[in-house]
Amino acid sequence: MTLTVLFAAGDAAFAEYQQPLRDAFVHHGLKVALVTDAAPADVDYIVYSPASTLRDFTPYTRCKAVLNLWAGVEKIVGNPTLTQPLARMVDPALTRGMVEYVCGHVLRYHLGMDAYISAPAGQWIAQEPPLAPERVVGILGLGELGRACADALVRLGFTVEGWSSRPKDVPDVTCHHGAEGFNLLLQRSDILVTLLPLTSQTENVLDAEAFAQMRDGSWFINPGRGALIDDDALLDAIDSGKIKGATLDVFRIEPLPADHPFWATPNITITPHIAATTRAESASNVIASNIARVEAGQTLLHKVDQQRGY
Amino acid sequence: MTLTVLFAAGDAAFAEYQQPLRDAFVHHGLKVALVTDAAPADVDYIVYSPASTLRDFTPYTRCKAVLNLWAGVEKIVGNPTLTQPLARMVDPALTRGMVEYVCGHVLRYHLGMDAYISAPAGQWIAQEPPLAPERVVGILGLGELGRACADALVRLGFTVEGWSSRPKDVPDVTCHHGAEGFNLLLQRSDILVTLLPLTSQTENVLDAEAFAQMRDGSWFINPGRGALIDDDALLDAIDSGKIKGATLDVFRIEPLPADHPFWATPNITITPHIAATTRAESASNVIASNIARVEAGQTLLHKVDQQRGY
Repeated sequence: MTLTVLFAAGDAAFAEYQQPLRDAFVHHGLKVALVTDAAPADVDYIVYSPASTLRDFTPYTRCKAVLNLWAGVEKIVGNPTLTQPLARMVDPALTRGMVEYVCGHVLRYHLGMDAYISAPAGQWIAQEPPLAPERVVGILGLGELGRACADALVRLGFTVEGWSSRPKDVPDVTCHHGAEGFNLLLQRSDILVTLLPLTSQTENVLDAEAFAQMRDGSWFINPGRGALIDDDALLDAIDSGKIKGATLDVFRIEPLPADHPFWATPNITITPHIAATTRAESASNVIASNIARVEAGQTLLHKVDQQRGY
Repeated sequence: MTLTVLFAAGDAAFAEYQQPLRDAFVHHGLKVALVTDAAPADVDYIVYSPASTLRDFTPYTRCKAVLNLWAGVEKIVGNPTLTQPLARMVDPALTRGMVEYVCGHVLRYHLGMDAYISAPAGQWIAQEPPLAPERVVGILGLGELGRACADALVRLGFTVEGWSSRPKDVPDVTCHHGAEGFNLLLQRSDILVTLLPLTSQTENVLDAEAFAQMRDGSWFINPGRGALIDDDALLDAIDSGKIKGATLDVFRIEPLPADHPFWATPNITITPHIAATTRAESASNVIASNIARVEAGQTLLHKVDQQRGY
């Protein structure tokens, strides 16, 4: 039997994913008609991103699962017409990219690299940096990405602590949870990394009150979601010196508008949403393998809890 | 019996090491008179660095070992009066610092951080960086430090290759050796890290001929020894674009003189010999434990092969 898979993630993504997806379907022994348009009642699976115009999932009565092309699902999970199971993208290549980004920027702040990269000629000031065990790196969010980053930072020797809404257990990581644990993590971290999903609970979770809890002269890295942060509160925390440096990869509006004050703040480093990108080959393999699971009667992997929102 | 340990590493170091050494001797159950001056024939051990004025080891007839305070031994190993066993400093804290420095700067080049750190406001150019397995990091020198760095880079996901004069076997690292292997490593590395000891064999080993072997647009990191590099050849390789960026921590003359052309070359980052510093507490422990070994009739650890020079 040939499966009809609707690619609803925009034309640009189709150009990139078409071949890798076809290859991955063949590799997993699936017979698939991969289409960008189909009678809704004929569709077996939907590969989705908000770049598509598809908003009403009601007519997709035969659809067994919606497979999100991105890790974040905040733009689809609240859709009341979505009754089909939804899978997040958990792409090992995306996770790897995130780990490299987080380790790189944590080491950058830890080693004080910026001062040397842009040092005036002739400035030789030998200052012994502390070693990694003397630095507390705090990870907000202990999901797939947070845990992978925590693990890599532990192996680099850092003292790693983490926070998640519900209690979690991560090897060699001091795990906090709940409102009290949240403040505790902020108070203890020399370098704070936010990897929370964006939900109604986490929007603006880094506000003036939260930044006030942070250590004086700490560093802040946000490769998670732009709306986790109250932008003005972050600017105030940088201005006051509370936060010595921030590296941001995600923003409420992307590309970050040219007149946004983040650009004009020297201690803020902007990266253009590159920390963790979905790689076509690797993501196609994840999608095909998940469809093959469902076709074989197994459970859908990385299924979103629509109640929790991630 | 009380041992006489002569501290011959300069006054500044004595101020720093005096207490940690005394603590470490007590901790290892050693009765020690730690002195900066003694009748040579009474001295049991010498803690040494070239910062001291001691050059003639002949009268230290009772001395069982010279314990170097630094990892590098090039300033003492050729001393013909040195007939006592010489131990290099292998300080776990120094190794850890080196691993952090090397991983940090490798990730920095890998992720193209500099472009974002000093980007003009408003410049949003999303370029998907390759992942670590797609980068070959070459390590010149597979001693204590080289192996530790190779191991950490492997765990970060990089493709790691190494070179040593004699054949070596390092897990998950493609090991080259000899003259042919040397060129091969240079040809294959996207990022080259030099961690060779300085000997008559390795001085100027990175000369014009070597840099010519390197990949176009590769990166170069030298936290090893300044004299491994022909400075002019490196400048030429940077000017021609052969080497896209270099980070140097060690120099023939330190501090690097203000008129040295390295300072005026934008693609060279200078760090002031901070990659791997000996930490007083940790190094004192290494020295005391090595003396305790010898006193217990065991072999001296990290003994220098004076023939090989390291």
